[in-house]
Amino acid sequence: MFNSTRTPGLRGGMAVLAGALAGGLTGLPAPAVERPPNLVIIFADDLGYGDLGCYGHPTIRTPNLDRMAAEGLRFTQFYAAASVCTPSRAGLMTGRYPVRSGMCSGKRRVLFPNSTGGLPASEITIAELLKTRGYVTQCIGKWHLGHLPQYQPTRNGFDHFLGLPYSNDMDRVPGAPRGRKAFLDPRIEYWNVPLIQDEKVIQRPADQNHLTRRYTREAVRFIRAHQDRPFFLYFAHTFPHVPLFASEQFHGRSRRGLFGDAVEELDWSVGRVLDTLRETGLDRRTLVFFTSDNGPWLIQGVQGGSAGLLREGKGSTWEGGMREPAIAWWPGRVRPGVCRALAATLDFLPTAAELAGAELPTDRVLDGVSLLPLLDGDGPPPRDSFIYYRGTEIYAARKGRYKAHFITRPAYGRSKPVRHDPPVLYDLERDPSEQYNVAAQHPDVIAEIRALVARHRATVKPVVNQLERTAKSAPRPAP
Amino acid sequence: MFNSTRTPGLRGGMAVLAGALAGGLTGLPAPAVERPPNLVIIFADDLGYGDLGCYGHPTIRTPNLDRMAAEGLRFTQFYAAASVCTPSRAGLMTGRYPVRSGMCSGKRRVLFPNSTGGLPASEITIAELLKTRGYVTQCIGKWHLGHLPQYQPTRNGFDHFLGLPYSNDMDRVPGAPRGRKAFLDPRIEYWNVPLIQDEKVIQRPADQNHLTRRYTREAVRFIRAHQDRPFFLYFAHTFPHVPLFASEQFHGRSRRGLFGDAVEELDWSVGRVLDTLRETGLDRRTLVFFTSDNGPWLIQGVQGGSAGLLREGKGSTWEGGMREPAIAWWPGRVRPGVCRALAATLDFLPTAAELAGAELPTDRVLDGVSLLPLLDGDGPPPRDSFIYYRGTEIYAARKGRYKAHFITRPAYGRSKPVRHDPPVLYDLERDPSEQYNVAAQHPDVIAEIRALVARHRATVKPVVNQLERTAKSAPRPAP
Repeated sequence: MFNSTRTPGLRGGMAVLAGALAGGLTGLPAPAVERPPNLVIIFADDLGYGDLGCYGHPTIRTPNLDRMAAEGLRFTQFYAAASVCTPSRAGLMTGRYPVRSGMCSGKRRVLFPNSTGGLPASEITIAELLKTRGYVTQCIGKWHLGHLPQYQPTRNGFDHFLGLPYSNDMDRVPGAPRGRKAFLDPRIEYWNVPLIQDEKVIQRPADQNHLTRRYTREAVRFIRAHQDRPFFLYFAHTFPHVPLFASEQFHGRSRRGLFGDAVEELDWSVGRVLDTLRETGLDRRTLVFFTSDNGPWLIQGVQGGSAGLLREGKGSTWEGGMREPAIAWWPGRVRPGVCRALAATLDFLPTAAELAGAELPTDRVLDGVSLLPLLDGDGPPPRDSFIYYRGTEIYAARKGRYKAHFITRPAYGRSKPVRHDPPVLYDLERDPSEQYNVAAQHPDVIAEIRALVARHRATVKPVVNQLERTAKSAPRPAP
Repeated sequence: MFNSTRTPGLRGGMAVLAGALAGGLTGLPAPAVERPPNLVIIFADDLGYGDLGCYGHPTIRTPNLDRMAAEGLRFTQFYAAASVCTPSRAGLMTGRYPVRSGMCSGKRRVLFPNSTGGLPASEITIAELLKTRGYVTQCIGKWHLGHLPQYQPTRNGFDHFLGLPYSNDMDRVPGAPRGRKAFLDPRIEYWNVPLIQDEKVIQRPADQNHLTRRYTREAVRFIRAHQDRPFFLYFAHTFPHVPLFASEQFHGRSRRGLFGDAVEELDWSVGRVLDTLRETGLDRRTLVFFTSDNGPWLIQGVQGGSAGLLREGKGSTWEGGMREPAIAWWPGRVRPGVCRALAATLDFLPTAAELAGAELPTDRVLDGVSLLPLLDGDGPPPRDSFIYYRGTEIYAARKGRYKAHFITRPAYGRSKPVRHDPPVLYDLERDPSEQYNVAAQHPDVIAEIRALVARHRATVKPVVNQLERTAKSAPRPAP
């Protein structure tokens, strides 16, 4: 299953080796050659491109993420693998477009409590890959890749799990306010969402007011407990997905209202994680990535976020649906700056493999590329294209600065897809808000993008659709 | 004309005095007690809220402004005095809403080459005020407050002037492409705009390709030449107003196209000014303010900028028309951070007066307030409200977080104004994109804003409208 012909981890390994040599020459203690760096992925839920201070929001205060951006590498063209939750997470976790794992559908766009599907055991997750290199692995927060026992994080390479099996707005109890009314003045008892530790429900309904705090405490504990072994922490926050909750310290504090409260507590949490890494001295051997699963859920009104200058939001293949704030942080390794190259959550798995010196699987197509050339600032941008799926269909594709929309459709509602032939073409670097169709001027670019899509399609094989597998009545998450 | 009862400059004076005492006690050379600080205002033209890296633009590179923001105070709720050029500049220069000087009109929204009006001699400009304290004063760039001899910068408190009398798209020559076509592939010979030194035309048409560079050279020269006297530099860039030009070094360099080229050269220019202050050691005795005259000119397509997450642009009383990027910089005095309090270009004059220890006029209404409490971070926000004029009419008003629109209208075109009674009300801190009308929930807020507007109206006296004064044929700028 794993490739032994290429030499993954060369760059990471070389850097460590160089460090050891330099240490020896200067008389300083040499870092251990064998120990690969830690990886922390912090993943927000429904956070938009425009929702952080360092991405231009006027009233949400995010001093910790702003500092992370100032000390790290802030991306401006970074993509989630899909515009909604389940497929986005499947893409992140496997380094493959979710169409390959069957984790996307045009009919049921995410997993629901009555779903019986989940991430197939045949898929290799980042956690499973890092396990081959002796990593300690922990999943905290929202999973949403299957809630039956066989799909849980602990069956996908994670030693431990503390979090929710799916979104915090699922499992609404009978009698709770209907529709979006329940989000205006949300109460935890409106939803019967379970909090799970490893494979056991420990609280139901989960106390959402204190979820960010609880997650954070667990993350800090995990980091402190593993100062002597390489670790992978996947910290997938529940917020700012509606219903919005925040602890007493943050509730009512933000000028931006409840949405701001949730984001500001998330920001606090990021600060706690980074501070813990600093305090333990692990900051110089840990790559931390922050991003979000998809764009802002605009139909939620002021309870939803903002895509800034990008068009549309969650659920859409316009930029606002899939382009995300993203920050890489690793003091001493990642040079502070702004990165305008293309990158995606699909790239986390190959990046992790290269850093850890783990072998990539060769029996399957990977869609990700290692981001180390961008992080180290010493190589050409590794990614030149991106495919925008809605469910199992390709709606758009980007090559270089140009994006062609073959199909467009409002993010939600009953409107039918509109097919474009020739496709609508935008120059995203000149026209980031996708306002001015330049298809007529660039038939050559359209031909190139068509060829790119055809090559991609040829690699996609039919698989069981996991999101369309359902039970008549909702099965309970185990046990 | 000048007030002698209040004690302007107390804060600034005290700070200098404290510095002198501290210097004496530590044995370091004490700064001269008597010398007030320098003031530099850098003013962009048609730059939108979303057009800088530090305000979230994904592809425009502004490392110098980003550094200025990191070292200084970045404002997120900062307003130009109007949504178009001439009234905006009149407000900045006088500290008064332009309706008080007659420098706004609903019919002719700015001055044109055939205008015969201009800023009345009775108005007191920042330059005139600072002259009373012995400042050397220089105006560089676009003036647009009257081009007949009696209105030029040199008649308004500036020792010297180098720049254009009005916008760079005026004076179009017969035979040049019509409408917006001329902006797509602009050539300097399409426009007969004069470059003026003091009161003399020195180049016509102005070489717009090298205008930013020429302005910048003059700014650097001015700063270097006045290291021993307090100075005021008003540096009002011609760009990124269309037609867009950039020097060879910047042309074709930006991923954002020609608009990005112009902004990136502007950014370079800001860097040159700040570097010159650093090199001369004047950085610690100079307040530099950067902002823009109004929002992005959206009807110019990719040749226009972006208001980021704000609604609409130039010409409009929606936030995108008047809320601007704004950065205050003064190493050692202004503490780095983000300021979310209200502020406006109207506040520059009172701020300058307090810093310089100049007396404010008492024979007229001033609409500005000193921003020193924000810059020093030691007092309550001095501004709680803002009035949004279109021409001579009040379209909207803000009090605290709420903004009421009494009239709305598209920025350009023939659409008639739509009057709202009750007004449309937005919570700008919770809903910065002005999407969700909350008028029904806040009749008390509407009553407060109506009272605020009534109090304001009672202070506005009829004056000669300067923008509606025209000649049959365009008079030439002097001589």
